Order: sequence, then structure tokens, then C-alpha cells
Amino acid sequence: MTKDTSLNHRIVLNSRPDGAPTPQDFRMETENAPVPGDGQVLLRTLFLSLDPYMRGRMSDGPSYAAPVALNATMVGGTVSRVERSNHPKFKPGQIVLSNAGWQTYAVSDGSDLLPVETADHPSHALSLLGMPGFTAWHGLLKIGAPRPGETVVVAAASGPVGSIVGQIAKIKGARVVGIAGGAEKCRYVIDELGFDACLDRRDAGLAQSLSTACPDGIDVYFENVGGDVFDAVLPLLNVGARMPLCGLVSQYNDRGAKSGVNRLPGFMMTLLAKRIRVQGFIIGDHYADEHAAFVGEMKQWVADGKVKLREDIVDGLENAPEAFIGLLQGKNFGKLVVKVSQ
Amino acid sequence: MTKDTSLNHRIVLNSRPDGAPTPQDFRMETENAPVPGDGQVLLRTLFLSLDPYMRGRMSDGPSYAAPVALNATMVGGTVSRVERSNHPKFKPGQIVLSNAGWQTYAVSDGSDLLPVETADHPSHALSLLGMPGFTAWHGLLKIGAPRPGETVVVAAASGPVGSIVGQIAKIKGARVVGIAGGAEKCRYVIDELGFDACLDRRDAGLAQSLSTACPDGIDVYFENVGGDVFDAVLPLLNVGARMPLCGLVSQYNDRGAKSGVNRLPGFMMTLLAKRIRVQGFIIGDHYADEHAAFVGEMKQWVADGKVKLREDIVDGLENAPEAFIGLLQGKNFGKLVVKVSQ
Repeated sequence: MTKDTSLNHRIVLNSRPDGAPTPQDFRMETENAPVPGDGQVLLRTLFLSLDPYMRGRMSDGPSYAAPVALNATMVGGTVSRVERSNHPKFKPGQIVLSNAGWQTYAVSDGSDLLPVETADHPSHALSLLGMPGFTAWHGLLKIGAPRPGETVVVAAASGPVGSIVGQIAKIKGARVVGIAGGAEKCRYVIDELGFDACLDRRDAGLAQSLSTACPDGIDVYFENVGGDVFDAVLPLLNVGARMPLCGLVSQYNDRGAKSGVNRLPGFMMTLLAKRIRVQGFIIGDHYADEHAAFVGEMKQWVADGKVKLREDIVDGLENAPEAFIGLLQGKNFGKLVVKVSQ
Repeated sequence: MTKDTSLNHRIVLNSRPDGAPTPQDFRMETENAPVPGDGQVLLRTLFLSLDPYMRGRMSDGPSYAAPVALNATMVGGTVSRVERSNHPKFKPGQIVLSNAGWQTYAVSDGSDLLPVETADHPSHALSLLGMPGFTAWHGLLKIGAPRPGETVVVAAASGPVGSIVGQIAKIKGARVVGIAGGAEKCRYVIDELGFDACLDRRDAGLAQSLSTACPDGIDVYFENVGGDVFDAVLPLLNVGARMPLCGLVSQYNDRGAKSGVNRLPGFMMTLLAKRIRVQGFIIGDHYADEHAAFVGEMKQWVADGKVKLREDIVDGLENAPEAFIGLLQGKNFGKLVVKVSQ
């Protein structure tokens, strides 16, 4: 190893955000790279995945996962290369899926590592064939279960989960309406991903244009954003609609309940009158049961060109905080990945 | 027939309620009994079922079923006796389940009639073996699906649906906590129906006492009331909880959304973080697929003494409006049935 590689750069949680995260909530630290012990490997991060769920880990309110401790390394999925190995199952040079977090080096005992089979495109292990793809596949097929001819609506349609949801729904014969931020993203969603329609979420007339785009109502709403999109969707849901719920990114920076009209009782009445199913899910619960089936199916779709995904690659770990802050504002276009090392 | 029986007394919708129904929203009319035509039968109502869903039919807002027209007979399930028959499948004297509504006589072409097999206790066709029993069975078993040792909470626990939900949950090995209005009902729910605990919904400390009664949290909340009970349940729901939603009786008289804090975004976040399933249902959707299975199972449970139900029988059709108004206030104790004729 060169001297250069003996330093680990890592980004830690400097302070808990009050509302939207700022650059000051992160801090870069540099230290000697860790040394792998018996049965351990030293990993070098090639790609770091940036995902909305990370916002939740920055807060210490009740959530489905423990928060990142102050001054601890930010968590995150990575594609990493084995640099040194004291583990019989891993060899130097091997590419693995890991949870190394926002840093250039990490050690692992191997228990959280999965081989990356897409050697020609390793970052796909963080997107099409990784957590976002699995989230889309499980939520759409196991909860949404669209039937041919039904209408599926998904927001953040140019993002990794939304774009995969829409493409799988098309494979299943549904009519698919996306919602994305701006005309350029909408064009991409229709022209490149094959959605039937895509609406600009910034459009002041979203409720009306969604109603026009969904003349037969909405049978499946894949919920990953909440907020204004949810408000536009709700009156259009059909009897028997299904609503897989995997994210509420528009709410993640909220500072608590807002005053105004309490819409919860009316929402429950809608669920009753229209026999709607809402199912929250966290994809981490489903690896043991369904991950192999997902990988098998998705690999084939990717190979057949039926499902694709644009990647938004940011160069350099030091740019991760700014990219992540932009992600929560919808500034990314496709799957946001940080290229950490060659 | 005697002269007496040639008159049909019926209760019609006189006006649409603004909030809680009043006696003035109903009107009794008297007219000649209808004459059955070819292929029709004349039915005499023996028992009329009073159920919370009828409140929804009195309003003309969006709902899952068409409203009752002004000046039309109030709808309702009945146990009726065939008085005259021009239909080959029905004989005078036969007891049938019907939708004759709030009146003493009705004609039917037979398509909506089901034989009543519980000749020794015909009103059971409106309760244990009727719509309330089927609602409890479907919602608890097909949506709630409690596992042995899990905690099930149900409100209106001395009412027909709630009391059956709790008894079936006990059969399935769950711990069952009921909520009912007043000490007498709570004693009945524990001593007679075998619930593990029952709390008074009027108790100002309901949230705290429910927390104490559910030390392992809540896995299934069978939602039929909404309001304060829902508020007490929500913080106690476990990861993976299921919430069959068949009624919101505490809201039925509401006049629109209330101002205050908008709790909907926080509710969605809870569904996500705890992977909770909410499923609205209307039992009318499930007769074709599941009714036979329900009847088979429930008959056996009733015969074995494992499921029972208190009936609250009101004498005389003219007393139906007052009884129904009381039902929405929780004044009934058990299944509310109007005895219309001998």
C-alpha cells in the first residue's frame, strides 16, 4: 500500500439537524486507517449510496432504527473492495456490498458482506440490484399488487425507487403515472422509462392535472414522499386501492405537527369507505424471505433492458454532505451515489 | 289475514341529520300493505336489526353506499316471515333473512332472501350468525390474524361486533383487552365473555390504563369507533401491528374536519416506522367468497358455547328511532334488535 491509503477519511455527525440538515451538521475527520484483526478484512469504499432514510438516523426521535451517535460515522451502504483479508472467504481485490458508511476505509468480520456480481457495473449493487430496487419490487408487487389495466401512481418518479416502481408496474400491464420535479425529469420518465404520463410536482394545479391523468382513478399509490403529492392522490383513490408506504421524504425535515385542520379522522373515514389498504414497510425486514427472488427477477429484467436506472454520481467523499442535503430537496436526478475511490 | 295486518307501518327518512340524528329526522307512515305479484312473496318483519352503518345512509355525502332518499323507508336487515308466496321456493310460514328495512311488511322477488336456520333463536341471524358476526370474523381473522400470545384490543366490547371479536381472539389464543362504556358493561365483558381486561372508555385516564393493561403493546387493534380510543391505542401499537377498520362510530355525527393540530402526517410516519397495516373493509364485499366458511365455523362455536352474545331487544317499530339514536351514543348493551311483530 502507498502511504496515501493509510489514512481513513470519514464524515461524522457533528450535530443533530433542526429541520433541514446543513453542512455544519457534518464534520470530516482524518485518522489512520484501521488494521484488520484475525478473521477480519480491510475494505476500501468505492461507492457510497446516499438515501433519504439517512435523514431519520440523524435525529434521535423514535424511529425504526437507532440514530447515529453524535461524532460517530454516518451510516450507509457501500460497494467496497477488499484491500487486505484475514478471513478465509474473502480475497484482496474482491468487490463486496457492505455497510461501511461515509468513510474511505472500514474493517468487517465478513458477516455483513455480500458478493457483488455486477462486476461490470458495481454501483448497480446499490441501486437496481440493491436496496432501492428491492424496496420498489417488494412494495409494488407484495403490497401494491397491480393488476393489468389498473392505474399506478408514484412520486419521485425519476429517483431510484420511483423509477423502478414505474417500470415494474409497466411490466405488469398497469397504466403508470409518475410525479417528478421539473420538466426535464418528466420528459426522462416518459421518454426513457416508458411511463404513460408524468406530472411536475411543482405545478400549482397538480391536483387537477393528476385527476386528468388518471381518468379511471388510482388503484395503487406507492407512497415515498407524502405532502402535496399525497394530498393530490387521496381524492382519486379507488375502492380497494392499495398504498405501500416506504417513505415520507417531504416530511423528514418537519419540526413537529403543524396546526390547522386535523385531517386524520377524515383520512380514516376514506380508508373505511373505500376499503383502502395502507401498509408501512421497511425493506430491511424482508431480506431473509424475499431477497433471492428479487435478485433473480430483477437481474433478468435488467439484462432484457426492461428496467434501467439513471445514476447521479458525485465525485469525492467530501461532497457527500452537500449531495445529501440536495437529495432531500429533490436536486438529484436518478440514483445518487458518491464515488469515493477508484 | 286479519284486518290489522293489512296495514304497513314504515319509518321513513324525514330529514337529513345535521350532526346527531333527532326523532324529527324520522317519520312514521301508514299505508296499505303491498300485494305480492307473480314470483313475489309478502314478508312480515319479525325482527329489525339496528346498526351504526345506518347513520351513514342518512347523509348524502360520499360514502360506500347510496344514501336513503328523503321520504324513503329506512334500510335495514330483518328476520321476516313469509306471509303469502307466489314464488315456488318460498312457503308461507317460512322464516327468512331479508332487507325489508324499517317497516312491518315488504315484498321481495326472493333474490335477497336467505333461509334462517336458527329457528329456535331467529334473531341470531341478525347478530352471531349475521352481519355483525361476519364482520368480526372477517376483520379479525382475515386482516388482524392474531397469533397466540399477541394482544388484541377492541372497543365497543359489549356491542355485537366487539364482543364477537374478543371471543374469537380468545379462541385463537390472544390476550384480549376490551373497552366499553361503564363499569357494568366492563364486568360483563370480563365475567361473561372472558376478556382478559376491560376498560371504561369514559375514564379520563384511558391512555394510561390502556398502557397498563397492555404491557407488551398492541398487535391487533380492531377499529370500530375512532376518537379517544384510537388516540389511546396509537402510541401502544407494536411493530407489525394490524388494524382492521370497519367502523368509526364516534365520528359518524361529526360535522366536518376539526381545527387543531393536523395529526395525519404524524400518523403516516407511525405507520411507516412501525410497519403497520391499516385495512378498511365493508363486510358486504365478502359474502360470495367467505360467508359459507364463516357460518360453518361460527355455528360450531355457538353450539360449543365458545361465542355468545347479549341481545338488547326493543319492542315495537315505533321505538326504533329512539333506540337507534341511543345506539350512536352507546346506550345499547349488546346487539340492538327491534321486535316488530310476533
